[in-house]
Amino acid sequence: MPAVVVVHGGAWAIPDERAKQCVDGVKAAACQGLSVLRGGGSALDAVEAAVRALEDNPVFNAGHGATLNIDGEVELDAIIVDGKTLSCGAVSSVKNIANPVTLARAVMDKTSHVMLTGEGANLFAESIGVSSVPTDSLVTEYEKREWEKHKHYVTGVMENFNSKWAHDTVGAVAVDCAGNVACATSTGGIRNKMVGRVGDSPVIGCGGYADNFSGAVSCTGHGESILKVTLARLVLLHIEQGKSVAKASQLSLQHMGDRVQGAGGVVVVSPSGQWAATFTTERMAWAAAEHDVLWFGINPNERLKEKLPQ
Amino acid sequence: MPAVVVVHGGAWAIPDERAKQCVDGVKAAACQGLSVLRGGGSALDAVEAAVRALEDNPVFNAGHGATLNIDGEVELDAIIVDGKTLSCGAVSSVKNIANPVTLARAVMDKTSHVMLTGEGANLFAESIGVSSVPTDSLVTEYEKREWEKHKHYVTGVMENFNSKWAHDTVGAVAVDCAGNVACATSTGGIRNKMVGRVGDSPVIGCGGYADNFSGAVSCTGHGESILKVTLARLVLLHIEQGKSVAKASQLSLQHMGDRVQGAGGVVVVSPSGQWAATFTTERMAWAAAEHDVLWFGINPNERLKEKLPQ
Repeated sequence: MPAVVVVHGGAWAIPDERAKQCVDGVKAAACQGLSVLRGGGSALDAVEAAVRALEDNPVFNAGHGATLNIDGEVELDAIIVDGKTLSCGAVSSVKNIANPVTLARAVMDKTSHVMLTGEGANLFAESIGVSSVPTDSLVTEYEKREWEKHKHYVTGVMENFNSKWAHDTVGAVAVDCAGNVACATSTGGIRNKMVGRVGDSPVIGCGGYADNFSGAVSCTGHGESILKVTLARLVLLHIEQGKSVAKASQLSLQHMGDRVQGAGGVVVVSPSGQWAATFTTERMAWAAAEHDVLWFGINPNERLKEKLPQ
Repeated sequence: MPAVVVVHGGAWAIPDERAKQCVDGVKAAACQGLSVLRGGGSALDAVEAAVRALEDNPVFNAGHGATLNIDGEVELDAIIVDGKTLSCGAVSSVKNIANPVTLARAVMDKTSHVMLTGEGANLFAESIGVSSVPTDSLVTEYEKREWEKHKHYVTGVMENFNSKWAHDTVGAVAVDCAGNVACATSTGGIRNKMVGRVGDSPVIGCGGYADNFSGAVSCTGHGESILKVTLARLVLLHIEQGKSVAKASQLSLQHMGDRVQGAGGVVVVSPSGQWAATFTTERMAWAAAEHDVLWFGINPNERLKEKLPQ
């Protein structure tokens, strides 16, 4: 079975000055995920590692570098799903956690629950020895400036802005040599969001879904639109009905545009290793690592290629 | 077009001593919903009214009478979905709110977001004049006793207990004369849940979903299992593929049992007024009000009937 990791760094109108950093970041994260698979790790391990790399990279809106809410605070959401068992872990609206995806995995592995929110998620983190980090350590100068610039506008949460505004959620999907699929998604949400706003990212079937019988999906874009159409579940539904991963992604994003006027993007992988990276926003940074090749792109219909070292 | 309201009061092994109260409660709530439709209200208005009636009734685990978390506190989740536009409002882990379904509707009507959680949801409530209530006013003596009895056990959140344990989440679906469908679900969650645990109820596609092109669903049962299979979305998917509301419900609950060993129940209505109330737990209190008839039941294959006053 082919091992594949596909990651995204968010679907939005990425400005030119950030394009290279975004592409470099997703390439590095995809390689990180693939190296986990090459080392015998599971799809679940690979997506966690890839998303941690993106959370740690301040250029992306997740973990370090997350956007700020209307009060100027960081509130983070993340999910991880195991396609073999449908086991899932998610956290929403957590503060002071450097790697929400790892906390989400702990919810999956160490509790009888699927989702923990807010203070409860932070209490759980403390109880299992996941240390909190100072708030300021997650906030970049760039985000502070953006927040200052936009705090008097409500445009950040307006649907009409959903293809232009920063939604650089990160995510990864993977299939391992055993044919197990997994997904993970992590985000700081929409800039200037209301306190306590939860987007699609930590919501199973919306920000991500994985099922060994069809595939794994991680979504990005206008969160409220993704929630309304349960985007990740919709992509897998099309695959269950015989569509290719590429066609399933296109149909689902088109439906989201038609029905709720939302734009976004997805990365998808099937249990047999077929994959797609599709978006209806102006840009989405993505990378796919398989065998000895790294594919990547940021513009529509762009599919660049690099040889990977063995 | 026929106007129909179907409600449930939770799928679990309802003990005999609570059976009559549960049946009386769902019958009253269904009538409440139907009277809204008869008065020219929308499906959305009807499900909100029906769920408010169930939240106000201390016999059900929602609003007044909710179960307590491991710390002995009430944390409430709710959702409402408009099948016409796919607009949705949800709150998770809110405290001191008597009618979370109405707060969820305010999230839908008055914000650009879909879901607010924890303190942020309470801040929003305050900002729009939804007053908070004293914590104790939502806690019943029955729940205090149950919490005392079980607080040293973790059985409440164990999957093997998912058909026996109290999961009396409440919910309603409706179709109005214009053919618009809607759903609403509200709950206190699983007794002795971890602080901040979010179940399926406030999660779009899981605890509820509504789409004028297929129908409306409200779910109840083991929340973590419902989340894993995105139960509400799955029911509508089967309807989209041509299944009847009854068959779609059975297939989806059966899949949840087979794939993640979870039990639960659903109420469903189609845009043409077909409806079903189906469960795989020992009992589920449900009632359906249409035309001049009130249907209801609590045991498997039970379908009792009463004439409604015009």
